[in-house]
Amino acid sequence: MLAEIINIGDELLIGQVVNTNAAWLGEELTATGIAVLRSNMIRDDREQIIQALTEARKRADIIILTGGLGPTKDDITKQTLCDHFESTLVFHPETYGNIVRLLGARGRKVMERNRKQAEIPEACTPIPNEHGTAPGMWFENNGKIIVSLPGVPYELKPMITGYVIPRLSERFDLHRIYQKTVLTQGMGESSIADAISEWESALPGNISLAYLPQPGIVRLRITAVGDDRENLKTQVERQILKLHSFIPNIIFGYNHDTLEEVVGSLLNKNGATVSTAESCTGGYIAHLLTSIPGSSDYFAGSVVAYANRIKASELGVSQHTLRSEGAVSEATVREMARGIKKRFNTAYAIAVSGIAGPTGSTPDKPVGTTWIAIAGPGQIRTRKFLFGEHRMRNIRKAALTSLQMLRWELAG
Amino acid sequence: MLAEIINIGDELLIGQVVNTNAAWLGEELTATGIAVLRSNMIRDDREQIIQALTEARKRADIIILTGGLGPTKDDITKQTLCDHFESTLVFHPETYGNIVRLLGARGRKVMERNRKQAEIPEACTPIPNEHGTAPGMWFENNGKIIVSLPGVPYELKPMITGYVIPRLSERFDLHRIYQKTVLTQGMGESSIADAISEWESALPGNISLAYLPQPGIVRLRITAVGDDRENLKTQVERQILKLHSFIPNIIFGYNHDTLEEVVGSLLNKNGATVSTAESCTGGYIAHLLTSIPGSSDYFAGSVVAYANRIKASELGVSQHTLRSEGAVSEATVREMARGIKKRFNTAYAIAVSGIAGPTGSTPDKPVGTTWIAIAGPGQIRTRKFLFGEHRMRNIRKAALTSLQMLRWELAG
Repeated sequence: MLAEIINIGDELLIGQVVNTNAAWLGEELTATGIAVLRSNMIRDDREQIIQALTEARKRADIIILTGGLGPTKDDITKQTLCDHFESTLVFHPETYGNIVRLLGARGRKVMERNRKQAEIPEACTPIPNEHGTAPGMWFENNGKIIVSLPGVPYELKPMITGYVIPRLSERFDLHRIYQKTVLTQGMGESSIADAISEWESALPGNISLAYLPQPGIVRLRITAVGDDRENLKTQVERQILKLHSFIPNIIFGYNHDTLEEVVGSLLNKNGATVSTAESCTGGYIAHLLTSIPGSSDYFAGSVVAYANRIKASELGVSQHTLRSEGAVSEATVREMARGIKKRFNTAYAIAVSGIAGPTGSTPDKPVGTTWIAIAGPGQIRTRKFLFGEHRMRNIRKAALTSLQMLRWELAG
Repeated sequence: MLAEIINIGDELLIGQVVNTNAAWLGEELTATGIAVLRSNMIRDDREQIIQALTEARKRADIIILTGGLGPTKDDITKQTLCDHFESTLVFHPETYGNIVRLLGARGRKVMERNRKQAEIPEACTPIPNEHGTAPGMWFENNGKIIVSLPGVPYELKPMITGYVIPRLSERFDLHRIYQKTVLTQGMGESSIADAISEWESALPGNISLAYLPQPGIVRLRITAVGDDRENLKTQVERQILKLHSFIPNIIFGYNHDTLEEVVGSLLNKNGATVSTAESCTGGYIAHLLTSIPGSSDYFAGSVVAYANRIKASELGVSQHTLRSEGAVSEATVREMARGIKKRFNTAYAIAVSGIAGPTGSTPDKPVGTTWIAIAGPGQIRTRKFLFGEHRMRNIRKAALTSLQMLRWELAG
């Protein structure tokens, strides 16, 4: 079962937008057992769309087009496909109802251009869009399946996972693939590779490992191929159990888990609360924690003490400590943690103080120097890190490291 | 002058790696006046390479292939192109010297596979690679230029900017393109389209407009084509001046500007400081402000008052207000703004309180209901919004809206 992807959008070709859809679609389809033969980025142009579609139909069984479905005049995919399949546009009341509901929830008027978005080629089945006004389209023609979806990632993704992939899975007898990604925080790719080399060498022939590093997190993607999905799943789970003994502390979750989710669940389980006192991370840890729905159950709040005077006035860090040891020190971060824990009356607290960069370094404290403190019911643990030279990556690494340290504290 | 890009690599198609090369190449070529017609991602497969190249040659004058030039057996591009152009591989001493030098600097031995990388198809001119062992290849055939380069971005980029583009610029009388993107915050794509339809219709034939929406921001990309870049620039600037009169308040910047940067500059210019009191945005506004290097000049800090008791104890929001009007109300957000401004002693303050969702709504306050307050030297301005149903997008929209409101306050 071969698929080809056609991403429509001038913005992709002139480099205004990086094509993340192709990578995401490639990953999702591959995990389902559908091989992606080719991905193409083309112009918002009728001739280009028809040409790309015609070529793709010779090569692939499933063609997924993204883009060009918006309400403005650049968006020509629907009319082009309608003509290509020799169909006519027909008003679809259910789709219109969805458009009205969506715009209403945003307090927006329904414009004529939005009403036109409810007109669908008769030859297709509309694919509902929960997050935008443009429905997707599912065409079947001469044994091929052609799917057209919006290019906006948060509209596209649920339509793929919730509608397209389930139907493709039902329809085709796909080669079985079972994939599970192990998530780690706290060691770099090379160090992990060394630590698990014995495990990796011992993997059976039908199981492969890919290292997918990001700032602060290394994902280990394990893929098994074979005929029986249940059997593959058992095999992979057995390998993961073995993997744990090689890298016991750094694994925090699987697949699409996030540290903030995992920590949130642990806090809920323990009936505990947390607050954060942030300097260089500038509120990013609070942002991660509050990105989880229901976090108000365990997250009380934060003080972002960016200026040193705020560290003193709001968190009780002593002027003596700030003067003698500096803002980026074990003493300061310990006092920040103690201060926020007490003030916000939470069971746990995270405090971070460091030099995100690019400026701010001193001879003994280069850019990337970061102190993290975790205050628990009993004690305050502190640790120093040297993250790197890049500001945003330092912020990200510091935040993820602090959440992992909190996870260790909570897990015991 | 049309170009087509062919990125070779299985890892792109299975979604292991996001294709950033296509976006970067698209931007660089477009700025030079070379229009990218199409970008394709294909497998590391001889047949696929030949097919893609053959198709591209019918459409474009310049074809750029990336990938498949490494020292391992997956890397088949060179042999495939050599055969396609009916050439033979010939050892190139200068290239070999570069390989020896490079590996020596990294303390590596020169392997047989590296020596083979110095064998170049006789039909091409080798393109030197300063950062890797694989040379690029420049072929000319039947009036077309075909360039093959490594897929590793830091190897590819200097070869494009230092070798390929200068030679293409010399060779061709390129149409000039001038592009500028206008950034707006505060109106949706459809509303903007209506507000500027008269301006859009009146655009001269050589100037086009594309709408690039994101949550909270709509980018308007204006492209002019013609013979004289300076002239095009003048034309575009004149159109943008006219555009301002149609949508006077929502334009905050151009091209790669961000609201947090623009606001930071205004604060610096005014010698002013800001603090934030955040509830539903959970520290995200502080995170945006602190993502800018040097923000410690104007950002003092924040209180993330996620729990209502923290709104009371840290920001002085009265229990009476919380009980009678609720946390998501004009009164609460006004008191939050007053509280943080006073406590952190800043010239300006942002306060946000809302229902990010998906839970938390009441009959009169649906998910997305958000109050924003901006406190300035003179007064506190408040405004209510209804953003939408999606938690992360509500957080993003609320943060961007508050920064825009602060910008209005600062700009007068």
